[in-house]
Amino acid sequence: MKALWLDDRKMSYRTDLPMPVLEADEVLIKVLLAGICSTDLEMLRGYYAFSGIPGHEFVGEVVDANGHEEWLGKRVIGDINISCGECERCLHQEPSQCAHRRTLGIFNYNGVFAEYLKLPVKNLTVVPGSVSDVLAVFAEPTAAALRILDQVQVRPSDRIILVGAGRLGLLIAQVLKNSGCDLKVVVRRAETASILESLGIRAVYSDEVKGELADIVVEATGSPEGFELSRSLTRARGTLVLKSTFAGDVSMNLSKLVVDEITLVGSRCGNYPAGLRALATGLVQVGEMVDSVFALEQGLDAISRAGEPGVLKVLIKP
Amino acid sequence: MKALWLDDRKMSYRTDLPMPVLEADEVLIKVLLAGICSTDLEMLRGYYAFSGIPGHEFVGEVVDANGHEEWLGKRVIGDINISCGECERCLHQEPSQCAHRRTLGIFNYNGVFAEYLKLPVKNLTVVPGSVSDVLAVFAEPTAAALRILDQVQVRPSDRIILVGAGRLGLLIAQVLKNSGCDLKVVVRRAETASILESLGIRAVYSDEVKGELADIVVEATGSPEGFELSRSLTRARGTLVLKSTFAGDVSMNLSKLVVDEITLVGSRCGNYPAGLRALATGLVQVGEMVDSVFALEQGLDAISRAGEPGVLKVLIKP
Repeated sequence: MKALWLDDRKMSYRTDLPMPVLEADEVLIKVLLAGICSTDLEMLRGYYAFSGIPGHEFVGEVVDANGHEEWLGKRVIGDINISCGECERCLHQEPSQCAHRRTLGIFNYNGVFAEYLKLPVKNLTVVPGSVSDVLAVFAEPTAAALRILDQVQVRPSDRIILVGAGRLGLLIAQVLKNSGCDLKVVVRRAETASILESLGIRAVYSDEVKGELADIVVEATGSPEGFELSRSLTRARGTLVLKSTFAGDVSMNLSKLVVDEITLVGSRCGNYPAGLRALATGLVQVGEMVDSVFALEQGLDAISRAGEPGVLKVLIKP
Repeated sequence: MKALWLDDRKMSYRTDLPMPVLEADEVLIKVLLAGICSTDLEMLRGYYAFSGIPGHEFVGEVVDANGHEEWLGKRVIGDINISCGECERCLHQEPSQCAHRRTLGIFNYNGVFAEYLKLPVKNLTVVPGSVSDVLAVFAEPTAAALRILDQVQVRPSDRIILVGAGRLGLLIAQVLKNSGCDLKVVVRRAETASILESLGIRAVYSDEVKGELADIVVEATGSPEGFELSRSLTRARGTLVLKSTFAGDVSMNLSKLVVDEITLVGSRCGNYPAGLRALATGLVQVGEMVDSVFALEQGLDAISRAGEPGVLKVLIKP
């Protein structure tokens, strides 16, 4: 099988990989389209020590249903968390926080930058015929953006500042805008500002918000500087949502959190059917976000392209 | 007037200080009893650059009501936050987070290690005759302990670990215990364990909780090691309450907060009438917490004593 392969931070294109071996309740999926996420790029910098096929954003078609024949031929997206079903978090209906989880293309489970992947059938959601492959491939990050609303009550009267408008930030911006709040998005590029403006969202540069205080701030840069700016923009008793992973430790003044009584909320994966629904109904739009589509054979070029400054979504089509 | 005086981290005992000068709506209060808090000791280490009379835990008697004659002769405790009444947080009924606040004995406002103090009349709460001075002087830290319940829903089914059982920790332990939760308190000394056991609260040493995961963890040590232990004890999607201020910056792995979706809650001052009520009704007991009572003239000895390892509440009686 053809696939990208990550080993000790080095990515290669290989044609000699074995097909996925299905275990009970796993199905085989042919990849129709895959997306490159910032986490994939972080892994090249050592965010996780992973050896295997990377990639976790995909839409595909079930080609071997392994006894679950009602799934055969279905176009699907899938939850990236492969949960045990038996630990405390699983029994509390929080499988994405399973203590023994494997994670598609990130931890102990091969990913989607390949011709085929496998996933447990319980992880799958069928994509409606009205939703294109390009739209469906955004279901995973859109679900992650929506996760904020699972965790924090966003009120129409809230002043919200989103710091960072990259691949994930542009989805978060739309999710927040839909709440009817007073939203500003801190950007670094005129191109991003222009995309936001076309979506009816106010874009500002960091020096334009200096000294402002928001009820809720969402950090989506993953950089220590972005974190410090976000913290400084959070009002006393406000909420700071961390939506990006950070490579390495960040030094911070915890006393400021205590004295200002700030609530810090770590936020990760969301509900996949909700992500798909937001895309299908147009609540979240991705039209201007696709930068380019590469063949799997040009996968290394795709990764390079995704790592260039300001580049949004790069897709891989096997 | 006699008082302790803090200047550039140096504490002195002085007899030449002027009486407080009352402004509109401020009353003059004779100090009956004052308590030494860890924050006072932190200020000696430079936590805040404060010059003036330190101390903020007190019970006193109004001796000049400055036009508010209904307060004359009343025994009172007082909110340590002197708020402007006009800023956004004040108008949102959050005066303890006033953007222009001064803080009794901590920031821009003389404190209570003195014969007299002044406070705005709106800051005062009358102490019922049934509540002793020794009990009333604990109203401020008890209110701070109760503040946790303002911010976090503590369920009887929750597993909670409190890290740190010093002056504030012993009050927090009782507040948490009253919620009916499954509580463990991490201690360092057999004496503290014994106080907790007499209150029906389970005390453990840090090596006894290694590997455990709690729904809510409360950090009350103010040390980077205490923070790291607390974080490691917080389950995925759990809540970590920061109840102590930390001198300096703390380095932390923000990605762990994101991946585990932990909520960090900074917690400060509470509701003073509620603090007094908890003490008056016996919900919170302080009998074993008083280490010693010093005269104001021996105030420097009192501060030294409070700084010795394992010493709980040291009181100053002018």
